[in-house]
Amino acid sequence: MSDSFEIDFNRTERLGFPEVIFGASKPLAVLGDILQSYKEKGLNALATKVQPSKGVALAERFPGSFYDEISGIFALEDSPDLEGSASEIAILSAGTSDAFVVNEAYHTLTFLGCKAKRYNDIGIAGIHRLLSKVDELRRYKVLIVVAGFEGALPTAVGGLLPQPIIAVPASVGYGVSEGGTVALNTMLSSCANGLTVVNIDNGYGAAMAAYRIIQSFA
Amino acid sequence: MSDSFEIDFNRTERLGFPEVIFGASKPLAVLGDILQSYKEKGLNALATKVQPSKGVALAERFPGSFYDEISGIFALEDSPDLEGSASEIAILSAGTSDAFVVNEAYHTLTFLGCKAKRYNDIGIAGIHRLLSKVDELRRYKVLIVVAGFEGALPTAVGGLLPQPIIAVPASVGYGVSEGGTVALNTMLSSCANGLTVVNIDNGYGAAMAAYRIIQSFA
Amino acid sequence: MSDSFEIDFNRTERLGFPEVIFGASKPLAVLGDILQSYKEKGLNALATKVQPSKGVALAERFPGSFYDEISGIFALEDSPDLEGSASEIAILSAGTSDAFVVNEAYHTLTFLGCKAKRYNDIGIAGIHRLLSKVDELRRYKVLIVVAGFEGALPTAVGGLLPQPIIAVPASVGYGVSEGGTVALNTMLSSCANGLTVVNIDNGYGAAMAAYRIIQSFA
Amino acid sequence: MSDSFEIDFNRTERLGFPEVIFGASKPLAVLGDILQSYKEKGLNALATKVQPSKGVALAERFPGSFYDEISGIFALEDSPDLEGSASEIAILSAGTSDAFVVNEAYHTLTFLGCKAKRYNDIGIAGIHRLLSKVDELRRYKVLIVVAGFEGALPTAVGGLLPQPIIAVPASVGYGVSEGGTVALNTMLSSCANGLTVVNIDNGYGAAMAAYRIIQSFA
Amino acid sequence: MSDSFEIDFNRTERLGFPEVIFGASKPLAVLGDILQSYKEKGLNALATKVQPSKGVALAERFPGSFYDEISGIFALEDSPDLEGSASEIAILSAGTSDAFVVNEAYHTLTFLGCKAKRYNDIGIAGIHRLLSKVDELRRYKVLIVVAGFEGALPTAVGGLLPQPIIAVPASVGYGVSEGGTVALNTMLSSCANGLTVVNIDNGYGAAMAAYRIIQSFA
Amino acid sequence: MSDSFEIDFNRTERLGFPEVIFGASKPLAVLGDILQSYKEKGLNALATKVQPSKGVALAERFPGSFYDEISGIFALEDSPDLEGSASEIAILSAGTSDAFVVNEAYHTLTFLGCKAKRYNDIGIAGIHRLLSKVDELRRYKVLIVVAGFEGALPTAVGGLLPQPIIAVPASVGYGVSEGGTVALNTMLSSCANGLTVVNIDNGYGAAMAAYRIIQSFA
Amino acid sequence: MSDSFEIDFNRTERLGFPEVIFGASKPLAVLGDILQSYKEKGLNALATKVQPSKGVALAERFPGSFYDEISGIFALEDSPDLEGSASEIAILSAGTSDAFVVNEAYHTLTFLGCKAKRYNDIGIAGIHRLLSKVDELRRYKVLIVVAGFEGALPTAVGGLLPQPIIAVPASVGYGVSEGGTVALNTMLSSCANGLTVVNIDNGYGAAMAAYRIIQSFA
Amino acid sequence: MSDSFEIDFNRTERLGFPEVIFGASKPLAVLGDILQSYKEKGLNALATKVQPSKGVALAERFPGSFYDEISGIFALEDSPDLEGSASEIAILSAGTSDAFVVNEAYHTLTFLGCKAKRYNDIGIAGIHRLLSKVDELRRYKVLIVVAGFEGALPTAVGGLLPQPIIAVPASVGYGVSEGGTVALNTMLSSCANGLTVVNIDNGYGAAMAAYRIIQSFA
Repeated sequence: MSDSFEIDFNRTERLGFPEVIFGASKPLAVLGDILQSYKEKGLNALATKVQPSKGVALAERFPGSFYDEISGIFALEDSPDLEGSASEIAILSAGTSDAFVVNEAYHTLTFLGCKAKRYNDIGIAGIHRLLSKVDELRRYKVLIVVAGFEGALPTAVGGLLPQPIIAVPASVGYGVSEGGTVALNTMLSSCANGLTVVNIDNGYGAAMAAYRIIQSFA
Repeated sequence: MSDSFEIDFNRTERLGFPEVIFGASKPLAVLGDILQSYKEKGLNALATKVQPSKGVALAERFPGSFYDEISGIFALEDSPDLEGSASEIAILSAGTSDAFVVNEAYHTLTFLGCKAKRYNDIGIAGIHRLLSKVDELRRYKVLIVVAGFEGALPTAVGGLLPQPIIAVPASVGYGVSEGGTVALNTMLSSCANGLTVVNIDNGYGAAMAAYRIIQSFA
Repeated sequence: MSDSFEIDFNRTERLGFPEVIFGASKPLAVLGDILQSYKEKGLNALATKVQPSKGVALAERFPGSFYDEISGIFALEDSPDLEGSASEIAILSAGTSDAFVVNEAYHTLTFLGCKAKRYNDIGIAGIHRLLSKVDELRRYKVLIVVAGFEGALPTAVGGLLPQPIIAVPASVGYGVSEGGTVALNTMLSSCANGLTVVNIDNGYGAAMAAYRIIQSFA
Repeated sequence: MSDSFEIDFNRTERLGFPEVIFGASKPLAVLGDILQSYKEKGLNALATKVQPSKGVALAERFPGSFYDEISGIFALEDSPDLEGSASEIAILSAGTSDAFVVNEAYHTLTFLGCKAKRYNDIGIAGIHRLLSKVDELRRYKVLIVVAGFEGALPTAVGGLLPQPIIAVPASVGYGVSEGGTVALNTMLSSCANGLTVVNIDNGYGAAMAAYRIIQSFA
Repeated sequence: MSDSFEIDFNRTERLGFPEVIFGASKPLAVLGDILQSYKEKGLNALATKVQPSKGVALAERFPGSFYDEISGIFALEDSPDLEGSASEIAILSAGTSDAFVVNEAYHTLTFLGCKAKRYNDIGIAGIHRLLSKVDELRRYKVLIVVAGFEGALPTAVGGLLPQPIIAVPASVGYGVSEGGTVALNTMLSSCANGLTVVNIDNGYGAAMAAYRIIQSFA
Repeated sequence: MSDSFEIDFNRTERLGFPEVIFGASKPLAVLGDILQSYKEKGLNALATKVQPSKGVALAERFPGSFYDEISGIFALEDSPDLEGSASEIAILSAGTSDAFVVNEAYHTLTFLGCKAKRYNDIGIAGIHRLLSKVDELRRYKVLIVVAGFEGALPTAVGGLLPQPIIAVPASVGYGVSEGGTVALNTMLSSCANGLTVVNIDNGYGAAMAAYRIIQSFA
Repeated sequence: MSDSFEIDFNRTERLGFPEVIFGASKPLAVLGDILQSYKEKGLNALATKVQPSKGVALAERFPGSFYDEISGIFALEDSPDLEGSASEIAILSAGTSDAFVVNEAYHTLTFLGCKAKRYNDIGIAGIHRLLSKVDELRRYKVLIVVAGFEGALPTAVGGLLPQPIIAVPASVGYGVSEGGTVALNTMLSSCANGLTVVNIDNGYGAAMAAYRIIQSFA
Repeated sequence: MSDSFEIDFNRTERLGFPEVIFGASKPLAVLGDILQSYKEKGLNALATKVQPSKGVALAERFPGSFYDEISGIFALEDSPDLEGSASEIAILSAGTSDAFVVNEAYHTLTFLGCKAKRYNDIGIAGIHRLLSKVDELRRYKVLIVVAGFEGALPTAVGGLLPQPIIAVPASVGYGVSEGGTVALNTMLSSCANGLTVVNIDNGYGAAMAAYRIIQSFA
């Protein structure tokens, strides 16, 4: 089979953002060819959920590229890290277990030229950590909130802050919460008003949703 | 079929509490006969999840009995209401939607001679309502916490208070949270340490669990 | 049980929108008392998923109120219908089967003072109906997209339009799609970038999410 | 245990097509023996879902055989590749992630002597790619449509084209769409009329279904 | 809400068959208005899963219409019953429990002008009833096979007959088979080659699939 | 549709027991016609899960017939009640909630001419009731054990007694055990050796399984 | 932790068969110690689902023992193979994919001293293979029927033969039938009368169930 | 990303027990840094579900620490083993398959300074082993009961003993009981009064729940 492909190069014109490549199920050679076709057109490109062995090989093949092993994000061209400058988007989570999702969102936003900031120590079991940061968090335009296990963090955030909230369930847990379905369902049925939700582990989708919001009011 | 039954009358000696009758699936006549056999032995008896039409009929048949239509609890003999006196057990919930579960726990405890107090306005979406009551709640020996929808209330309570917590999921919700499974799973996978959980809508079981604890240290 | 309740009256100050009453599981008398307490403070109030028999009784009790039987939305005070004026939010669906969700979103937005417009004839099976409206739809700030059965409409919209999209699965279908879970999962796993999703039949939540976005950039 | 087997050699007479061997759960030695028994009768044979280590060994043992590592299809005798000649069947998919299912269908059809053509760049998120090919696709007798994730492609095809459509869900996705169940359910509940569906990843079954159709009208 | 709708009147030109109305979730008044708009254009129309109270009222409103209470099929104009004449399609089932699905398929085919014949006594538990009809069944172009409970009938048919088979799971059963999911999954994982499947109770979809096949070779 | 049917009258010769009629999903008129056709051949017939309104009507139509409202069992001819005579089969359950399943098994056995005895007070929570009957139970050839909720009774019986055990889950419970799936899975995964299981609420199937055993050794 | 254990050595007296060891989740050292304690008492012992690496090591440690790698059955003392002599039990399956379950049943029966015979070529898709063996199969006292995928074989057997049937679902399949749940549910909801079922892959349990039957009539 | 973390060091003051570290999803380096921060403050710390490769490395890095490979429990400082002294808590299970859960509970209690005793030979299939220990078990304040497969042990214990019971489902089983969901549901729907339940494999949570009880009455 001649494994041809036709890239949707004019998606950026239509939607304001490019097609992104789902890296998990594509062989290294196919991924490399797709990225090469972007490079030849002088375009940057983003691939998600690229496993370490493939990511390291791509990073070698494409000098100047960016690869984050924690999240599996690969970008043809590294983007300047804007964290710390006046950010529009905050990404909240309870800690290092969720870092693979947090980073997927963060690096996607960086790729899109958005300024975002990560808060890695906001857990629901110690509610004071969230309470002490409410005023600081109030200045962002959009909040992305990542949580595994029982996924209650977005509910607590939504009861305290008025901004748009994009909740991301993480597949971190065991027993009934293995795989992230409990966190997902908790977020969907939250008694906090107006939360929106994306797929389990979909940090990339949360970033795109935040980007759609920012872009719509730019 | 002669629908005979043999009641476990000496369960009280063995366990310290009597057999309780599951009322939902028994016809009115059978329920009446079982209760009659207790009455003839001079024993009080408790039936759970008795539907209104059956409950009203039983209340008429057995003078001096107690029936709570909200929870479906029926007791052969009414017990003195101890709410307000120095209670050992607090029952927390977010409001009127969960009252059928709260009341099942409350009236079971009354039947067992335990002092309990209900808090019906503790919701997670407005966390300040919980925070303002933390000191008052600290004086109970056991906390029963009822919640439907996403079921996050026991997690918040467990992060603030050190007592034994019996979490009860309520079958209140719609969409993914219809039937109570989301609340149940949230409680089971809570990141708050040491929560215990009973079946959906099992206010009766939560009361019995609290009673086992109180009894073990009496 | 004296069924007391404590309303979170200062939520508006904290979040910019009031607490909303889940009407489905509350008895008529309790609903009436809660609404009365709002009326006495001179506040408007919104209740969702109020069944027809309760809605009609409340509409009689509270003159000047609004009740929409299709969606079960009840508001203490009717709001001016702004549909047709320059709207910021479009609500898309395939037709009359989804009207109960569409209306819940629409009347919630009206209650919040937002201008929204409904498009009831955008179905995925006849893709030309969507294609012919792409330019018109491009002028809204936020798109709410409702779909039952296989729930593919938000995916098609997301591939054609760049705005923030809040997808709402509707519990319309039969066989495997009964109850709305298929539509929900389709929306969560859409290959269109950056869709966000709310619970099944949660038109109210979609409206609140849109309101959070509009409010964040006001 | 003497692992005997009795092959249904006269199935071809009864049904017009031979018994096919499910390769995934059979040890290499057993697979080899079964294939050998076909070879000794001068018959061609097809095995599906043969893992690479087994497939390579079989290819060595049986000269002139065919093995496709992407799909795991093994045929005792290679068949002439008819792609490009006037085909009766088109196999549509969104790209390289679904290639293992596309190829299983394609090589099964080749084995059966059917002419089929693959279209690997028809994705729903960029609907124009499908729209631009509608006229070309109209000339096939049967359409096989493969999709993972949310599985919406067959719905879009079914709204634009009148032929028999065999939809094949692919186990490509993550979070809620992991394993292919979401794609399956989307296809089953499609609002496009008259789609038929086969098991997840069952490219072989789709090919057999197409063959039954072609054969019935030959 | 002015519940407008826009009908896809030129679907027939595009696909060769008209849009069909899902009757279950539409109020009587809306159904009546949609049908009226077809009548005014001089077109016939089909509605599925119309509940008895609505079906009887529509039959009264539209003289010359057809309504089958068993399946809920309603057609604006009755079609001549072609059963008994040389049919192209056979509809097989085990008996009266599946009649609501069998009839939905049958009357849809009649509406489309196809000749079909019903076999209501083909059950897998008494395999001789199927075996005795194999020769007669061999002369149809397409077989629709309906089954509830364990859904094994299409597997048996598929092992004996070479034609295209559209398997329809019926929501007849109890315990684990309640709702039809077991029959659906049995059909999807059948070891008989090349079965295709439609949604549970989707007799209408099976008819449309058969019609696509017949039409593709007309 | 002329709703014809062909009865498998010679099943008794082939298998030693007649075809049995699933009553739940058949209209009264159809049930009556099927039973009439048996009566005209001078055969007895059994229908299961016949709802009260239909059962009472059939009992009136067919003098000398038997109808048990608890289980929904209907027999054309009443059989002599053999309970109390030397029985080969014991049917164990915890009490009146499971009576609808117990009776379905019991009356099916009576119809088949088997002697069975019911034990309605064997519950696992009061294990002494089972222990006190172990010697008496040892004399039966086959044990049918019915249980709802957590379904642990067959496990306890299987650890104490050596006979063939047919476990029947009952759809009695609430929360996670609603519908009987928990009881079913408990029985399937029992650590007691050699339990066999039938479908939820399938008292009829348990009776037939017991009959197959008795008949095989007669 | 001193991992002590107390073996139920007098189970044989109570039930007529010994405790059996679940080998899958026990470390090699623990398994060895348990088996050693049996050996020292001069008793034979059976372990199930022993993985190859552990099985081979145990076979070396205990001379004269028996290990079947296909099924993972390990017995301290090898038993004489009685297949071929007049057997009481037949084990039916469609072929080599189910051999791991068939062998678990077969070797357990050998361990218990029962005579059993395996039929490995009875598939439902080619029904003539079953029909041609009906008379031969009629002479066994008990039938064990193993099937994966859609699990329809026991239904076909149950419609043709009158003996007790123990159906065993095998975890062979892919897509919806992966893991064996479809086969399990098919067997539980079979329209063939009086099938009994054991857990997925539980060949051992099927053998014990057959042994309980044989023993009860010995 | 500078993977910072902020530890909830004053949780002990608030709740009486420290934050515990979920070890399964954290990389070795992160785990080491978190533990180091505790060590530098002179605090002991507990990590759960630490995989062997990480546990061994941590044990080397932190002299005087404790690591139990069976359960994955790691403690910065080893605690004196109090088993055998007058214990307040008994941990019951059926044997070595559940040891990973039993040990997680036991070592957590040791870390918290609680005296606990393990009973590893209490299985439901041989009920006499439980019966013979009832008097001895009566002297504990709290019972933790671990069970896999069908999870019936806590039900039997709850019918015989009056203390608080914390039931822990173990993910030991196969077929329907694989993963522990059956055991969990059995425990939740137990007919024994007042059982409480924690997540599957959550020995740590059971220990914390027991500690909350002991602490509340200290």
